[in-house]
Amino acid sequence: MKTINSTPKKDGFRMPAEWEPRKQDWLIWPERQDTWRLGGKPAQKVLVEVAQEIVKFNKLSVICSADQYENARARLPEEVRVIEMTTDDAWAQDKGPFFLVNDEGDQRGVTWGWNAYGGLEGGLYFPWKRDEEFAAKLLDLEDVDRYDARGMVFEGGAMQIDGEGTLIVTENSVLNHNRNPNLTKAEVENNFKEYMNLDKVIWLKDGMAFDETDGHVDDVLFFVRPGVLALSWTDDVNNPQYKPLKEAYDILSQETDAKGRKFEIHKIPIPGILTISEEENAGIDLCEGAASRESGLPLAVTYINSYFVNGGILVPQFGDPMDDVACEMFKKMMPEREVVKIWTREFSLAGGNIHCMALQQPAAIVK
Amino acid sequence: MKTINSTPKKDGFRMPAEWEPRKQDWLIWPERQDTWRLGGKPAQKVLVEVAQEIVKFNKLSVICSADQYENARARLPEEVRVIEMTTDDAWAQDKGPFFLVNDEGDQRGVTWGWNAYGGLEGGLYFPWKRDEEFAAKLLDLEDVDRYDARGMVFEGGAMQIDGEGTLIVTENSVLNHNRNPNLTKAEVENNFKEYMNLDKVIWLKDGMAFDETDGHVDDVLFFVRPGVLALSWTDDVNNPQYKPLKEAYDILSQETDAKGRKFEIHKIPIPGILTISEEENAGIDLCEGAASRESGLPLAVTYINSYFVNGGILVPQFGDPMDDVACEMFKKMMPEREVVKIWTREFSLAGGNIHCMALQQPAAIVK
Repeated sequence: MKTINSTPKKDGFRMPAEWEPRKQDWLIWPERQDTWRLGGKPAQKVLVEVAQEIVKFNKLSVICSADQYENARARLPEEVRVIEMTTDDAWAQDKGPFFLVNDEGDQRGVTWGWNAYGGLEGGLYFPWKRDEEFAAKLLDLEDVDRYDARGMVFEGGAMQIDGEGTLIVTENSVLNHNRNPNLTKAEVENNFKEYMNLDKVIWLKDGMAFDETDGHVDDVLFFVRPGVLALSWTDDVNNPQYKPLKEAYDILSQETDAKGRKFEIHKIPIPGILTISEEENAGIDLCEGAASRESGLPLAVTYINSYFVNGGILVPQFGDPMDDVACEMFKKMMPEREVVKIWTREFSLAGGNIHCMALQQPAAIVK
Repeated sequence: MKTINSTPKKDGFRMPAEWEPRKQDWLIWPERQDTWRLGGKPAQKVLVEVAQEIVKFNKLSVICSADQYENARARLPEEVRVIEMTTDDAWAQDKGPFFLVNDEGDQRGVTWGWNAYGGLEGGLYFPWKRDEEFAAKLLDLEDVDRYDARGMVFEGGAMQIDGEGTLIVTENSVLNHNRNPNLTKAEVENNFKEYMNLDKVIWLKDGMAFDETDGHVDDVLFFVRPGVLALSWTDDVNNPQYKPLKEAYDILSQETDAKGRKFEIHKIPIPGILTISEEENAGIDLCEGAASRESGLPLAVTYINSYFVNGGILVPQFGDPMDDVACEMFKKMMPEREVVKIWTREFSLAGGNIHCMALQQPAAIVK
């Protein structure tokens, strides 16, 4: 793996939108016992179900520890490529490399700084050395050269792009003192533009309430296509999610994208309040420095944390009346895509969902 | 990775000779401290030198532990792909998958049983679970489907082939009671023919003296091309290597290959006796179950444990007068190849040499 002393913008590489053709997806086998209850077995079962769906649409590689290799290999579909790599936790979207392509069919990657969602000031686990190494190791494995942007801490779930020059992020997750205390907003914007080859950055204030990541935008919205957004939503002014989502809506409805388009915004209802039960909580290891998930505390849950695959979209389901409502809205918004329902309560219990767990690697196509 | 319920012979896959075009080579970072002295640092330095040579000829991937990834990545040339995988030791040739190709440009692999050169009866380390898993994990990583021959213990260094249907092995390394006590010679031969798609098996009695592997044939000889062999040799009847090498010569000079050709045999002189010094021995961890390498004990050393790359051959050098003699003979035998000298005493101290350390992955070519 070569490290290229330049930037994607200078070299004509761009980051594709999540609906663009995929080479493969990546998942990480959930293992750490202060995140995943009961030795990770319930979450591993869900991951196998996710894998079974993904391989219907595109190729998939799953990363796991040496100790879990035999088990993961035996449980995953044989079409899945299972690869040993040591990680600190399973959120591939956040710590993975950003994959870039150019019009000549080449692929490169960007590696950002990593401190497990805030380092020693509110981070979610300790240590995080293996996850800090993860993005570069994955590029090395894929034989993809990289741009090194490790001077700035940034997570894949903290951004959404339209593939045509527009980025949406939240201030709380990027400008937080526990991520980049020494970078100005202008410097951060410049890094975005150089390393993702973007023209416009739209800043929201914060993400959803109860989000452990300091407000990742991938719980708030995703681009359906350029100019079109799906936004987490509730009309209930007493719901703790109302304030941040209304604030996001107000900003976005006044904004235009990099091409000057006003946004068409689809409000996708969030499910009712989901809490972790005492029994579920009892299955998680007690560990200093780990995120505290008290029983009874509400979790940040939304259908927006869905994941695009080639020709489909995987949508979290919670056993809530809104499950079907959200899926029907998705079908209307994306009639070209198959909407696949996945029961992902186990991922929510650990603080994330399908989009947080999966990482997209675009196809490199000659244009 | 799919496991194919058939055999290569039935499906038209064959194992290419080592001089056929290479996709890439594999090396494993030497780490275990009861094999490699001084924390493996001197051997790692040699491995870096080997890597620097290999990348001049073809692609190379190097496998290392999570703990050594950062160090290996920093020391190896940037063109090398560095990949984390847990192993029990560094002898990639012996425990790697056998790569097969067909005439349609497809690639498949064979995984054999593994017990670290003899299991609990004279094996060289304990446990060996990670190395037992190694071949399948490597195929999985490379997205290559496999034939499962794990019912028979077999090592890559225990055989030499000509790519045209001929195999040479030693009885002591394959039929040893510590490898395959429940298989008859006929069953073993049948496995060779089915899983490597071969027509003829030539049996030598044993390998070189002081060899820890129960006589791997890759210290005794290699095929230069079909019909032509390079054989380790000494004319000194008092040298402990004389007897097994003369015995091999006598068998081979009476034999024909799968195509009915008599062998042209080039006798390559072995270097003088090499022993491990007291100081070198002091740098190796003491560990029950590990191979005993007493200081003063002779090591099995030969130029025959060389390694083919695309357009070249890497030849071990020991600081012996025979170093140049062997290389000159190689140049005459293979004028089309660049002969690259590598100082590999560190590998010999651990019981092997370049051929034991490296694994070839052939190119899959449409014919």
